[in-house]
Amino acid sequence: MSAVLQAPADPLADWRVAAEPYYRPVGDEVAQFQDAYALRLPLLLKGPPGCGKTRFVEHMAWTLGLPLVTVACHEDMAAGDLLGRWLIDADGTRWQDGPLSLAARHGALCYLDELIEARPDALTVLHPLADTRRVLPLERNGELLAAHPRFQLVVSYNPQPGRDLRPATRQRFVAMAFEAPPVPAQVAILVHEAGLEPEQAMRLVGLAERARALDEGAQAALSMRMLVRAGQLMAGGMQARVACELALVQAWSDQPERVQALRALADALYP
Amino acid sequence: MSAVLQAPADPLADWRVAAEPYYRPVGDEVAQFQDAYALRLPLLLKGPPGCGKTRFVEHMAWTLGLPLVTVACHEDMAAGDLLGRWLIDADGTRWQDGPLSLAARHGALCYLDELIEARPDALTVLHPLADTRRVLPLERNGELLAAHPRFQLVVSYNPQPGRDLRPATRQRFVAMAFEAPPVPAQVAILVHEAGLEPEQAMRLVGLAERARALDEGAQAALSMRMLVRAGQLMAGGMQARVACELALVQAWSDQPERVQALRALADALYP
Amino acid sequence: MSAVLQAPADPLADWRVAAEPYYRPVGDEVAQFQDAYALRLPLLLKGPPGCGKTRFVEHMAWTLGLPLVTVACHEDMAAGDLLGRWLIDADGTRWQDGPLSLAARHGALCYLDELIEARPDALTVLHPLADTRRVLPLERNGELLAAHPRFQLVVSYNPQPGRDLRPATRQRFVAMAFEAPPVPAQVAILVHEAGLEPEQAMRLVGLAERARALDEGAQAALSMRMLVRAGQLMAGGMQARVACELALVQAWSDQPERVQALRALADALYP
Amino acid sequence: MSAVLQAPADPLADWRVAAEPYYRPVGDEVAQFQDAYALRLPLLLKGPPGCGKTRFVEHMAWTLGLPLVTVACHEDMAAGDLLGRWLIDADGTRWQDGPLSLAARHGALCYLDELIEARPDALTVLHPLADTRRVLPLERNGELLAAHPRFQLVVSYNPQPGRDLRPATRQRFVAMAFEAPPVPAQVAILVHEAGLEPEQAMRLVGLAERARALDEGAQAALSMRMLVRAGQLMAGGMQARVACELALVQAWSDQPERVQALRALADALYP
Amino acid sequence: MSAVLQAPADPLADWRVAAEPYYRPVGDEVAQFQDAYALRLPLLLKGPPGCGKTRFVEHMAWTLGLPLVTVACHEDMAAGDLLGRWLIDADGTRWQDGPLSLAARHGALCYLDELIEARPDALTVLHPLADTRRVLPLERNGELLAAHPRFQLVVSYNPQPGRDLRPATRQRFVAMAFEAPPVPAQVAILVHEAGLEPEQAMRLVGLAERARALDEGAQAALSMRMLVRAGQLMAGGMQARVACELALVQAWSDQPERVQALRALADALYP
Amino acid sequence: MSAVLQAPADPLADWRVAAEPYYRPVGDEVAQFQDAYALRLPLLLKGPPGCGKTRFVEHMAWTLGLPLVTVACHEDMAAGDLLGRWLIDADGTRWQDGPLSLAARHGALCYLDELIEARPDALTVLHPLADTRRVLPLERNGELLAAHPRFQLVVSYNPQPGRDLRPATRQRFVAMAFEAPPVPAQVAILVHEAGLEPEQAMRLVGLAERARALDEGAQAALSMRMLVRAGQLMAGGMQARVACELALVQAWSDQPERVQALRALADALYP
Repeated sequence: MSAVLQAPADPLADWRVAAEPYYRPVGDEVAQFQDAYALRLPLLLKGPPGCGKTRFVEHMAWTLGLPLVTVACHEDMAAGDLLGRWLIDADGTRWQDGPLSLAARHGALCYLDELIEARPDALTVLHPLADTRRVLPLERNGELLAAHPRFQLVVSYNPQPGRDLRPATRQRFVAMAFEAPPVPAQVAILVHEAGLEPEQAMRLVGLAERARALDEGAQAALSMRMLVRAGQLMAGGMQARVACELALVQAWSDQPERVQALRALADALYP
Repeated sequence: MSAVLQAPADPLADWRVAAEPYYRPVGDEVAQFQDAYALRLPLLLKGPPGCGKTRFVEHMAWTLGLPLVTVACHEDMAAGDLLGRWLIDADGTRWQDGPLSLAARHGALCYLDELIEARPDALTVLHPLADTRRVLPLERNGELLAAHPRFQLVVSYNPQPGRDLRPATRQRFVAMAFEAPPVPAQVAILVHEAGLEPEQAMRLVGLAERARALDEGAQAALSMRMLVRAGQLMAGGMQARVACELALVQAWSDQPERVQALRALADALYP
Repeated sequence: MSAVLQAPADPLADWRVAAEPYYRPVGDEVAQFQDAYALRLPLLLKGPPGCGKTRFVEHMAWTLGLPLVTVACHEDMAAGDLLGRWLIDADGTRWQDGPLSLAARHGALCYLDELIEARPDALTVLHPLADTRRVLPLERNGELLAAHPRFQLVVSYNPQPGRDLRPATRQRFVAMAFEAPPVPAQVAILVHEAGLEPEQAMRLVGLAERARALDEGAQAALSMRMLVRAGQLMAGGMQARVACELALVQAWSDQPERVQALRALADALYP
Repeated sequence: MSAVLQAPADPLADWRVAAEPYYRPVGDEVAQFQDAYALRLPLLLKGPPGCGKTRFVEHMAWTLGLPLVTVACHEDMAAGDLLGRWLIDADGTRWQDGPLSLAARHGALCYLDELIEARPDALTVLHPLADTRRVLPLERNGELLAAHPRFQLVVSYNPQPGRDLRPATRQRFVAMAFEAPPVPAQVAILVHEAGLEPEQAMRLVGLAERARALDEGAQAALSMRMLVRAGQLMAGGMQARVACELALVQAWSDQPERVQALRALADALYP
Repeated sequence: MSAVLQAPADPLADWRVAAEPYYRPVGDEVAQFQDAYALRLPLLLKGPPGCGKTRFVEHMAWTLGLPLVTVACHEDMAAGDLLGRWLIDADGTRWQDGPLSLAARHGALCYLDELIEARPDALTVLHPLADTRRVLPLERNGELLAAHPRFQLVVSYNPQPGRDLRPATRQRFVAMAFEAPPVPAQVAILVHEAGLEPEQAMRLVGLAERARALDEGAQAALSMRMLVRAGQLMAGGMQARVACELALVQAWSDQPERVQALRALADALYP
Repeated sequence: MSAVLQAPADPLADWRVAAEPYYRPVGDEVAQFQDAYALRLPLLLKGPPGCGKTRFVEHMAWTLGLPLVTVACHEDMAAGDLLGRWLIDADGTRWQDGPLSLAARHGALCYLDELIEARPDALTVLHPLADTRRVLPLERNGELLAAHPRFQLVVSYNPQPGRDLRPATRQRFVAMAFEAPPVPAQVAILVHEAGLEPEQAMRLVGLAERARALDEGAQAALSMRMLVRAGQLMAGGMQARVACELALVQAWSDQPERVQALRALADALYP
């Protein structure tokens, strides 16, 4: 309940990253993030779901010692959900910061996940925060909030044909592209995260790679996250074939033909 | 009225399962559910209405000793309906958890029924709760709620062509497929639930199976629940033919031709 | 004003049926309703407007000694209109039951008229109340309301091509089909309700039957209710031909050709 | 300001008709209205704008000694606009009747003008008030309001191709058709209402009749109300030709060709 | 801040016209307005933007000694924006008149600009105020406001093909058509309003007339208001060619070809 | 927190421009702005995103000693977001000005960015403020606010085919067109803003000019702001080729072919 009172001692206490998150770099992304942060340039991470963007941001927040305030964007998100609102209590109205104003006011890393799901006009509030002004007009509070010197803005989405940010939003970000990790990285992640033996991990990655070769949709849909869950079930004692049925086959699709195709691959590898 | 005051002694008292629900397993589903729960992996149950998903979840909640908080999803459901809201009383505003935050805070099994009816963006709030973070950002409460160690998330829906979850939501779940129970199981359920004699039960199941063979729509629409109700009316003394008219024929469809087809089958079996 | 205070002595006082409503059975519908009520199975009544469904429900409520809470469904009806809401007064917020929760809590017959006009997702709240659980989750009240042992749910609508309930809703009901009453019943109703002489009643029913033979729309639109009103105007002293013009011809349609056709029939019978 | 306090002495004081409204019957409409009122049958008045429906209702309210509560329907009208709502003041919430519940509670004639403009589902609230039950469920007030014995419901609209009431609404009303008054009546109205000499009135009606013969749209659009206004301007000293330009030509249409056609007629009559 | 308290001494103080507005009549419009006002007939002014309708209304309000309450209509305007609403303060709720009820209650000229932008159903509230009843039902206030004897309603819009008022709204107004002022009037206005020398004014009007001859769109778009602004910039010392670029060319259009065409005319006149 | 209390000493304190913003004039725009301001004519700035409009306005506010209140327009912006609203506190309701009324009341430069994103009807509130009346009707406050003598209105947008302001809005503004700065200006800006050496700046501008020649979309999308960010990353020590990948290539587009084309140009210049 103490979190509700928003203790003035550390309003970001809930959002501090408690332990170092496991992250396996695949290139120079750590240094690039640090260079952008040195200039406080807003960052845009592009890539498919489950490829590690969120984990990377957690890793960078831990590395930089920044609290991490995460917002999952959606079409129904209104400006007030980002900026805050007035609450009524016995002493009248009280202003409560939203996640964006909380992070900007006290100096956190604010991570807006799936930015492209938000309505374009809801993102207009980011503009003065994402250029050299670094201010956030809280119109409903009658306040022009100047961002804390440590504040950093990071956003991400999965690029899809026919959907794009508005140019005025997009041009305010420096962008980095992410892809699914290469095979050896997938194996290493499975060993670390699911606790599989390397041979088990390699067989599971092999199944995933063959499934991803089935068609383009499969490539995007069979994510690292699903592999880790299949691996966890195996490591927890479930029969490998059953673990694949639950964590991969049924989780992958409801269409009978797609279910059959993936099940056939699983049957071949785990007879 | 005491339920309204949300007694701090046991905020989940209303949601405890009072007695062991009748459930007749058809495979390894109980062990699979337990394996997923051991890892706290979110579960997705797929299958047609009336095939027993809800009863299975009740059975598992009872078996695991977990309170069961059920939410029937619908298109109009807003994030606040899941997460909670502020209420005004004499002492100012008071936060009231929604079913999802209640279950996550105190350690219940939260069951979201008919998940696919919810607007995709309303389900975005599930994402941080359904991956390794197991947290629920209550933005309107300024709180980042860490899920209770016993908290488990289960969702279900009836797969339909042309409707699917968004990949970012779907890939967070381990999935199990359910189907209508086989004939002997149907008979056993009718005997147990409706109190029919075995011969009565077999004749009723026979009628249902012939009706389901009429067309694909019939297969999905003539559920176990309807058979149980027809059986209950018979066991309560209603003439079998009339019970079929009310619980099966008229309940099944408003289209004259479909009504006629099912009525002809009923006339043949209950002359 | 006392009704506003919701006297705790009998919260259903307003909804008790004061006198026995006139109802003329046309088959076994009374016994069938009683059998379904004995098992507390939710009932669906199907039939055209004005054929007597509402009167039948009033009759059954009186027969069973149940208060009758009626709700006319419409597209704009939100869950809160059925379930209740929080009101603010000097002592803070106070929960006020909606018609469905009022009936479920205190044991009334709840009758949802024109169910098909409601948005499908608004009806999702009925699901846990209409299966074996017989509970109503009042999410905004943080309460899981167990239905009173005497509570009974009845719904009705006029079947129309291209509109149907969702299967998950529909399969929770036992259904009875109603039609316009046969000619002798129509005559008897006119004599009882409008106070016409039998010959007057027969002539009026004869006009209605010829008009219903004009086309399919006419069959549905010329309801018993309109005949009773024409009869009442005649019994009150209005010239028969004028009473038909007001209560049948002009009330039936705005289209000149339809108005002409019905007027010609009326002219022939009441020259 | 006293009206705001809703003096308990006579809550309908504002809505009493102060003086006898001028109305010139064209047939038996007065007796027919009285017959329907004797039985308290809800009335539907059909006819084009400006043909005298509103004046007729005012006349009947005065004749019957009933206060007249008028509501102009529109698409944005919600149930709360008819039924009432809760207001907050220092002592908590206070229920304020809407026009429909005010009229039903205290016994007025409630007149819903342009009923067809309202959304069909908003009219569902009229159903229990417009059949033999004569009750109004005020769900937000937790009250089932029984209509006052003197309460009468009257509605009106201008029939238009492709728009109709729902059958369940329509069949609850007894209907009367209105048309533009015949020429002698128009002249008499002009003499009485505008204060014109009979010859002036006849010339103006002559212009209107020729204009109405131009096309079907003109017939509906050139209403009695516009003629009265042209007459008033003439009687007030404005040149007849200019009065026609303002009250008829420019008021009739913005389309140059239609404006020209009507102006040519006016030029011919008032050279 | 005192305006907020709505001083009872003169609730219309803010809306009084302080000084005689400059207006140059082009015909009998002043007398026609006065004749309509003598009968309190609602007035509709038709004409393109910037042709002087608003100034004419200001002039008439000053001439008649009436306060002027102006409302710019828009699609989002709700009935409450015209009629008023309840405000909450320490003593409970307090009714605050909207511009229409303020003007009707205390006797002002209420001017609804761009009436056609309002949703048709929002204008339904004008009907009882714009016919012989001259009342305004304030449903949310439970009040039937009788208009002050001096109250006058004036509306305006720019006629556009395919858009029209609903007949029931339109026929309640007496209408006057306005056009752009003739060339000598334009010159006189420029001399008076912008402070140009007559020769300068004539050259500027010459440019405008040539531009208006370019196409139909230009005729409507190059308004008197734009000419006055160009003239003001010139009189303030800006080079004539530059003033035309800012106040006419760039203000007129964003389309390169239209910009080029107007710029060519300006280059020719101001080489 | 002091900003929330809206200190009466200087309600515009947050919006004062602290230091002279860097701005490099490309023509007479500074004098033209000053001439328009001398007459308080509302100004419209047209041009692509990132070409310097916002910086120019900041520069002019600093030059004229005016506080600068900036509003980023969006489709969801309601009139209340510009005009203000009522807040509830212990002493009742309190009016809080919106950015437009704040600027108009106390004499600031109000800058509405991306005006064309706002719904046309939301801009209707600007009309009386943007003509000779210079008043702002705050209907919800019952106040007619006369603009402060120093108040100035400036708006901007990026012209796009098929989108335009409504004539009645547009004709109230004097307009200035902006374009991307010429090459020498771009180089000078890069040297000043990013801290690059002139040779580095010239190479980067060369890359941008070649990219803008690729197609029309590229011309608009590759803004000065993006170049400055690439330059800042280089000046901060990032390898030039990598800085281009992040700040130009990935930030520019998600389409593989466009990404390839720009990357090829970058590879050629930074081998």
